[in-house]
Amino acid sequence: MTVLVVGSVALDSVETPFGKAENVIGGSGTFFSASASHLSPVQLVGVVGDDYPMDQLEPLRKRGVDMAGLEQAKGESFRWRGRYRHDLNSAETLETRLGVFSHFSPKIPPQFRDAPFVFLANIDPRLQLDVLRQVQRPRLVACDTMNFWIESRRPDIVELIKHVDLITLNDGEARQLTDCSNLLKAARWIMERGPRMVIIKKGEHGAFLFKEKSIFFAPAYPLEDVFDPTGAGDSFAGGFMGYLARSGDLSDASFRRAVVYGSAMGSFAVEKFSVQRLLELTPTDITSRVADFRKLVAFEEEQAT
Amino acid sequence: MTVLVVGSVALDSVETPFGKAENVIGGSGTFFSASASHLSPVQLVGVVGDDYPMDQLEPLRKRGVDMAGLEQAKGESFRWRGRYRHDLNSAETLETRLGVFSHFSPKIPPQFRDAPFVFLANIDPRLQLDVLRQVQRPRLVACDTMNFWIESRRPDIVELIKHVDLITLNDGEARQLTDCSNLLKAARWIMERGPRMVIIKKGEHGAFLFKEKSIFFAPAYPLEDVFDPTGAGDSFAGGFMGYLARSGDLSDASFRRAVVYGSAMGSFAVEKFSVQRLLELTPTDITSRVADFRKLVAFEEEQAT
Repeated sequence: MTVLVVGSVALDSVETPFGKAENVIGGSGTFFSASASHLSPVQLVGVVGDDYPMDQLEPLRKRGVDMAGLEQAKGESFRWRGRYRHDLNSAETLETRLGVFSHFSPKIPPQFRDAPFVFLANIDPRLQLDVLRQVQRPRLVACDTMNFWIESRRPDIVELIKHVDLITLNDGEARQLTDCSNLLKAARWIMERGPRMVIIKKGEHGAFLFKEKSIFFAPAYPLEDVFDPTGAGDSFAGGFMGYLARSGDLSDASFRRAVVYGSAMGSFAVEKFSVQRLLELTPTDITSRVADFRKLVAFEEEQAT
Repeated sequence: MTVLVVGSVALDSVETPFGKAENVIGGSGTFFSASASHLSPVQLVGVVGDDYPMDQLEPLRKRGVDMAGLEQAKGESFRWRGRYRHDLNSAETLETRLGVFSHFSPKIPPQFRDAPFVFLANIDPRLQLDVLRQVQRPRLVACDTMNFWIESRRPDIVELIKHVDLITLNDGEARQLTDCSNLLKAARWIMERGPRMVIIKKGEHGAFLFKEKSIFFAPAYPLEDVFDPTGAGDSFAGGFMGYLARSGDLSDASFRRAVVYGSAMGSFAVEKFSVQRLLELTPTDITSRVADFRKLVAFEEEQAT
């Protein structure tokens, strides 16, 4: 089955303790697509300026990302410049130039409107709501958001989450949105307002999937070198949604596997700049990392002691 | 089989966002014993002053903690006063009075010297080394330490770890000891200097067990209310060593289960002040929490896709 993603397609300039990259392709829609396309067909909706290096998106198109919804508008593309110091868990934003993204109004092409899986990547919650008005009863709708929108558009987020099945947030954002410092309480606060499921991402400390009656946890894959954390969360979401779309299975077991696929894809994303590592992955790389996750957490309970 | 623990037996005064406790029993040896005694017989070596409320240790004795090695010396007991603010991951020490503990020289009673499992809880590494000279070829020796000793007695710690099978540290201490910010590299640094295994505890973010060729990870149990984190690490160590002593099994599978038992006991310890919660546990409480850990991380890989 297909995943529709609406998100940003940007140019990133990133500095980490390990190097620098200038104007490389990035954005939530881009990372999501590069990740999910390993598992299922992807439909991407977004906007770029007339300065965007479209040829650099060619590898995504070849991987089955349908770009019929990627508008090219007059003006500058969305650009983000950021830096990571030794704490690779938090980015320092040096510059954000929204460019054509500031007037973005997502138009879902007719042939995308019946996508069974929809991911509303991190954009203005009003636009996320607008996308929901254009699609037809998807089997699963998930959304992401960030601190900026929680501060400036809180009522819209509260409205949005009434209409989604699942939301992904990082731990700081979950605390900020709910005013609960305990993550179980934060997840419950959210689930009382709409979503049946909440994923709380803790960066290098792993991710929780909360459902009404169960909690699943997947650690982050322990890497010796985290090269560039940019896009890890969007790649996680891509692996998660891509896995669900591939399996078409919405059982608890399938959601658990989806979180592990998400964690696996997130762990690849941080190994190189931009979507570089994601683009070079083979199916074996992915299944073998998923197997490594299993080895990392597997233990057997004793038989009656 | 029996576990011998050498550690502090103290009086704690603790303030958390949820309440206050004055002069309650604490110390690394006490928490370790309260935890491990649910799983195996324990021999405790330590020192208290003549002001210590010995009757409060009675429940431990009843649980099978042999106190023949607990010396009562003239003078004041070791007292610690600390506070936790909203970040329950780090304690603020308000006062430490070593009392009789400042002249502590552990004397292992002859009947304890062949204990198959030995845990050197957090005390001066010179004393930890001294204990190792008194015991007879244990099957497994593990030690703990803390930032204070890493700063003031680094060469002694480096000497100590040559002689232990396993060391437990928290993430900050591992980084401080090894000067590696990456935990995999930190663990390898330590394993190159003696121990075959390293446990790195990340508080609410879980714990890693590193071995030469494998990594195991157990999350912390997600609790709605962490009441008082004091003693969580020592209770973890107690559950870990207690499980190994009970099973007598030093296979990889057994070490993994031991980490989960450690995490389970740590999660109980923080639910009330002092050793209160540990003392009221039933065997069913423990096995059911271990089962909950399994549910928390369990996922099945797909069959060939």
